[in-house]
Amino acid sequence: MSLESTHSGRLLKAPENFISPDGVRRVFAEAKEGRRDFIRSAFAAAVAGGAASGALGQANPVAAGGGDPNILNLPAHTTGLGQAVVTDGYGKPSKYEANVQRRQSPGLTQTNQASVSFSPLQSLFGIVTPSGLHFERHHQGWWDIDPSKHRLMINGSDDTLLKTPKVFTMDELMRLPSVSRFHFIECGANTGMEWGNVAVPTCQYTHGMISCSEFTGVPLKLLFDMCGVDYRRARFVLGEGADGSSMTRTVPMELVESGEVFVAYGQNGEMLRPENGYPLRLVVPGVQGVSWVKYLRRIEVGDKPYSTKDEDIHYIDLMPGGLHRQYTSTQECKSVITTPSGGQVLLDKGYYQISGLAWSGKGRIKRVDVSVDGGRNWKSARLQDPVMSKCLTRFSLDWAWDGKPTLIQSRAMDETGYVQPTYKQLRAVRDTRSIYHNHAIQTWLVQDSGEVKNVQLS
Amino acid sequence: MSLESTHSGRLLKAPENFISPDGVRRVFAEAKEGRRDFIRSAFAAAVAGGAASGALGQANPVAAGGGDPNILNLPAHTTGLGQAVVTDGYGKPSKYEANVQRRQSPGLTQTNQASVSFSPLQSLFGIVTPSGLHFERHHQGWWDIDPSKHRLMINGSDDTLLKTPKVFTMDELMRLPSVSRFHFIECGANTGMEWGNVAVPTCQYTHGMISCSEFTGVPLKLLFDMCGVDYRRARFVLGEGADGSSMTRTVPMELVESGEVFVAYGQNGEMLRPENGYPLRLVVPGVQGVSWVKYLRRIEVGDKPYSTKDEDIHYIDLMPGGLHRQYTSTQECKSVITTPSGGQVLLDKGYYQISGLAWSGKGRIKRVDVSVDGGRNWKSARLQDPVMSKCLTRFSLDWAWDGKPTLIQSRAMDETGYVQPTYKQLRAVRDTRSIYHNHAIQTWLVQDSGEVKNVQLS
Repeated sequence: MSLESTHSGRLLKAPENFISPDGVRRVFAEAKEGRRDFIRSAFAAAVAGGAASGALGQANPVAAGGGDPNILNLPAHTTGLGQAVVTDGYGKPSKYEANVQRRQSPGLTQTNQASVSFSPLQSLFGIVTPSGLHFERHHQGWWDIDPSKHRLMINGSDDTLLKTPKVFTMDELMRLPSVSRFHFIECGANTGMEWGNVAVPTCQYTHGMISCSEFTGVPLKLLFDMCGVDYRRARFVLGEGADGSSMTRTVPMELVESGEVFVAYGQNGEMLRPENGYPLRLVVPGVQGVSWVKYLRRIEVGDKPYSTKDEDIHYIDLMPGGLHRQYTSTQECKSVITTPSGGQVLLDKGYYQISGLAWSGKGRIKRVDVSVDGGRNWKSARLQDPVMSKCLTRFSLDWAWDGKPTLIQSRAMDETGYVQPTYKQLRAVRDTRSIYHNHAIQTWLVQDSGEVKNVQLS
Repeated sequence: MSLESTHSGRLLKAPENFISPDGVRRVFAEAKEGRRDFIRSAFAAAVAGGAASGALGQANPVAAGGGDPNILNLPAHTTGLGQAVVTDGYGKPSKYEANVQRRQSPGLTQTNQASVSFSPLQSLFGIVTPSGLHFERHHQGWWDIDPSKHRLMINGSDDTLLKTPKVFTMDELMRLPSVSRFHFIECGANTGMEWGNVAVPTCQYTHGMISCSEFTGVPLKLLFDMCGVDYRRARFVLGEGADGSSMTRTVPMELVESGEVFVAYGQNGEMLRPENGYPLRLVVPGVQGVSWVKYLRRIEVGDKPYSTKDEDIHYIDLMPGGLHRQYTSTQECKSVITTPSGGQVLLDKGYYQISGLAWSGKGRIKRVDVSVDGGRNWKSARLQDPVMSKCLTRFSLDWAWDGKPTLIQSRAMDETGYVQPTYKQLRAVRDTRSIYHNHAIQTWLVQDSGEVKNVQLS
């Protein structure tokens, strides 16, 4: 069992190990005939003998010795008084889930400020990522910025591209018409380490730079309309963050005109978290996370791409023959099986639900196929509603493990008909020197011991 | 400004107060011409004069006196090095959002264990409720139960109704086929205090016993099939919780047969929170929250309703003529405007987005109408996609406030054609002695001071 395994990541006992029907019948019959009298007498004994405990409601008849614990071992939560309504006003996960954490990959980055924490995909359900477990990617650390002092400025690279530059306070932005939409956000470097090797053991580290939330904010088109943007000439948009990295990214104007791009203050019902750009970030659905500029303080419209440091040096694709590609920011169709996945252990043969996530920066997921023989045969998985555009889609498939070594894979197809490629297909186009934009099919090997391992088929 | 008001609950300045276009042009021109040189010289001065500050990256050229702060007052988050990747692995909201809390209503309950905390609807966006702000209703306090020791038993009220009783561990349940679905959960007593008066100032207290999450778990029908339930005779289901309140509720078998009822372990991507039934609760979409039994330990099938204490004494509707109704558990079509709402302040005239939530226990929301004249005229609001069955739906409408006293209301209609009633219509059927199941139209009065007040139209 790996460090990342947790209650919700475990794969344990088979249905054969269920408590026997006879045992259930016996407990039930005992309870029906004797339990009430038993509880009554046990409780009386506890009250008589347990005056030291004080609170009547907290007496545990079994713990207090009021009966044979082998007959009716009632837990404290059944006999006692529970905890009061959460008084700090904001709840936390169970202490038994403390292992479900976003984590740094040891040695991946040189500092903790220009670093990454990965989302524990192997322990998550459905499509919403809890904001406390949303992956992080900081270029110069994160900040908790005072929203009453934060401003968003909108201007043109020259005065002819935009009639009226404006500066908005957060209150002004939050008063405007808003939209709420579910979208995934994926770092362009997600799965980057897999290009060269399979040293990364779990899907938290192979694919954990993706998360999915309900974002709320103001369509950028509306702000541009208020400023009088000349859409004929202003074909590019620059987003700029307020943190020290001065993150700046070019976004094509057609994405803004489609109505999809918005400046977001809300995430999963509440304000954005500080690590994710509080109080304002750009949401560019389908596009890699670096363009979702955090701590968004300025948006400029221009008539050509801005060719910023983060566009010329980082997030580019090294291609065969010494060439490179720039501005390849739309995340292609991709998927990963999260259960069973690397680091998990199947403790015996029998039924398992294969479950995973699929997404595409180009629209809705149309189909996900799953193979349990290394890609020779494929079966279509169930897609969980709602299937939304540029959003995670949860898929699942029933599977019985025969105890033999098994290669499991998922392959997604989006509404454009694009099919997630194998490593062989992707390398034929991209060669072997890429870092970013790896969306190849992931393979997990279930070994005969039940341990699941990250492997790559040649 | 009420105690509950927070950054995300404020309604401030009008667009007229935006910084002037001339000011923006000046700042932009200054930045273009001088900023780089200015920053360079200011930074040099700070380094020379600010050795005491130690960390080079944290020097703030302006604060350190390296320039005229009136010209370029760069904040620390632009000049310094931010915080490292979150090391405890689970993030928290911004310190500026500390006021966004679930809260108890002072004096409403006698103890903090048999109590309620209300969700801050006035500060929330979209439809997902962050799990840390999900409303709480405890009958005997909450527990953090060890999932490795928790069991779910399924049996029949006699041996002929179910072939094979079973006891499931959490691991066994989590290995089975699962579904993930977005649903609201509303306490049957939500808005109960409004029957008699309008003493409750904010929508947190009038309507905050509703929340909405993506739940994940195993369809109960599947578990019943595994146990061999005789669906012809076993027409009722009893859910039983493991906490001291021994919460027990009857659920009609047809809801289980529809496939909608499931035993949930997941909520918003992670495991259920302890306050909300960790590690297992019953999900009965559309039905009042008390039937979503928390700490679920046992499910029994029977041939008649169980008539438990919580069905005979609580959650019943007192009707005219001394009669009462039982088993009225489906939550009717209902809505509430959350912005502007009681306790908020409109600081001036002009544009506002009216925004709120609508839901129905009988299916999808079909339409929401909004009135800004006390119900004489109605306009249809925008519904935010996705509109899902038995789930919250966010609606919004553009509105310009003329500064005069205004009565604002929302009225929802569901896919069955049922329309949310006025208090007058509801009282004509239910009289005045009800506590539960109040789904009448809520009225907020925007006073000429801009303060929003809870009122009731006769």
